[in-house]
Amino acid sequence: MERFRVAVVVTIRRSIADVQGMTVEQALHAIGFPMIEDVRIGKYVEMLVTAASAEEARAYVEQACQQLLANPVIEDYRVMFAVPIATEAEQQG
Amino acid sequence: MERFRVAVVVTIRRSIADVQGMTVEQALHAIGFPMIEDVRIGKYVEMLVTAASAEEARAYVEQACQQLLANPVIEDYRVMFAVPIATEAEQQG
Repeated sequence: MERFRVAVVVTIRRSIADVQGMTVEQALHAIGFPMIEDVRIGKYVEMLVTAASAEEARAYVEQACQQLLANPVIEDYRVMFAVPIATEAEQQG
Repeated sequence: MERFRVAVVVTIRRSIADVQGMTVEQALHAIGFPMIEDVRIGKYVEMLVTAASAEEARAYVEQACQQLLANPVIEDYRVMFAVPIATEAEQQG
């Protein structure tokens, strides 16, 4: 078994108004950033996953998204990366 | 001027306890994901930026992070990507 650092992004579906994003956009305009528009805010979740392969690690995280991390009715999720890391045992020699 | 889709991730510094992440980790273990550990939760912000270049778009977003999107005392931020998109005018021919 190997350990993988996996990151997933959970965002509100495009068809649903992102009220938090709109509020941040107004605040950015108010402090001098008129060039920034269409702000959408989501969750970023990074974790360590023990699995036989990067594909398996990714599959676990997708199941976790479906069951807990995302609300599939109003949110989309995508796995950004799944990279192997050295285990503590290996690091300690 | 061009338009760029820019994404930034704002995470709690490693030295600070991520209480939300710990809570999610416990919940994941409770529903059958013991292989997922060290859960850290952050914010993901995606936006459209009008700028002369990708470097300028990235610089605007870094300023916005310093001034509003992140709390530099307890959070780190990193720009994930800054990619040009076709403008509405170009799309309409």
